Amino acid sequence: MNFQEISKKRRAINFFDSDRDVPEDLLREMIDASADTPSSFNLQPWNLMVLRNVEEKERLKSLAWDQAKVAEAPVVLIVLADKSGWQEGYPVFEKNWEEMVKSGAMQLEQRDWFLGATNSLYNWSPDANLAFAAKNAGFFAMSLMYAATALGLETHPMDGFDHEAVRKEFKIPNNYWVPLLLAVGYRKPGLELQPAKWRRNYDEIIISF
Amino acid sequence: MNFQEISKKRRAINFFDSDRDVPEDLLREMIDASADTPSSFNLQPWNLMVLRNVEEKERLKSLAWDQAKVAEAPVVLIVLADKSGWQEGYPVFEKNWEEMVKSGAMQLEQRDWFLGATNSLYNWSPDANLAFAAKNAGFFAMSLMYAATALGLETHPMDGFDHEAVRKEFKIPNNYWVPLLLAVGYRKPGLELQPAKWRRNYDEIIISF
Repeated sequence: MNFQEISKKRRAINFFDSDRDVPEDLLREMIDASADTPSSFNLQPWNLMVLRNVEEKERLKSLAWDQAKVAEAPVVLIVLADKSGWQEGYPVFEKNWEEMVKSGAMQLEQRDWFLGATNSLYNWSPDANLAFAAKNAGFFAMSLMYAATALGLETHPMDGFDHEAVRKEFKIPNNYWVPLLLAVGYRKPGLELQPAKWRRNYDEIIISF
Repeated sequence: MNFQEISKKRRAINFFDSDRDVPEDLLREMIDASADTPSSFNLQPWNLMVLRNVEEKERLKSLAWDQAKVAEAPVVLIVLADKSGWQEGYPVFEKNWEEMVKSGAMQLEQRDWFLGATNSLYNWSPDANLAFAAKNAGFFAMSLMYAATALGLETHPMDGFDHEAVRKEFKIPNNYWVPLLLAVGYRKPGLELQPAKWRRNYDEIIISF
């Protein structure tokens, strides 16, 4: 499938086939296919929690407006956006630095510049590190949805949940924002999709002031 | 190109061919190809400013760490994330409501539920509407990058700019966050790319607590 086909085929599916599991290998393929997602300074400030267990999904469902698909989809991903992902000492930050030096993309003597750059861009206001994390996790989640579609899977990105209750229930540390949940699975057999929703076109998206 | 090919081909390009313009039709195709990007409640809380004019790009460059590519790329998009996109009365919100009713996806009597839903999800903390906007704009920007790649264009998502100075210089209203700039064009002839940067794999992305 080319991009236009994938983009048209990707739909937010409300009814999943709870009898058809997503094999672990396929989920791995989907996530690895999204690994090349770009991010600010290649910091990749995202993680995923994978929920497959019925009891875990039921606990999440009760905090997510009791949406049936949270329990019915074989896999529900809790997408995590790491607000601290630009900070010195954070594992991915340090690994990224190490790999950039190893590859020659950065020189050891640029360390101070690198630290200064991420600090100045993501720490100038209380909003800046949240926006950094949410935007980059948005890139990643979008890749996950396209990768899933390309592999024949269906998804549904969900905002309908109590952010703080989910954080507490699943012991998610303070450095994370939870930008969305992502249900992954197969469409319920016989399900007929509604026509695709209205979208704005070029002329409606472009703005000037 | 299938998704894996697009994903591997998409690279952040630092050196653009400033002699090779992006035809208006192709830019339109790229943006329209991204129109099916999903968003929370289909609110599509994003806009784009299109900079093609040399003088405008130079003004932006001076606020963007003087990165040469801001002036060299034929097109630079200022991506805007609408923090108010969930609010009653905002044009896209209202048009979205109207279209959902027209298509039968929502009933007129669900208006209060719809207003209550977006308000409860995106207005419970000062962070919630920023995260809403940044995440959804992240979805859209990722689609733009893939759509560009599929059309033979190159891109570079940029964070290296003074957020508040750019807002002021380009008269961007307060309801917008600027999550990134996106350079669009063609690779400078003869440019050799560095090997792709390190990315985490499945086992490094999955986390549990």
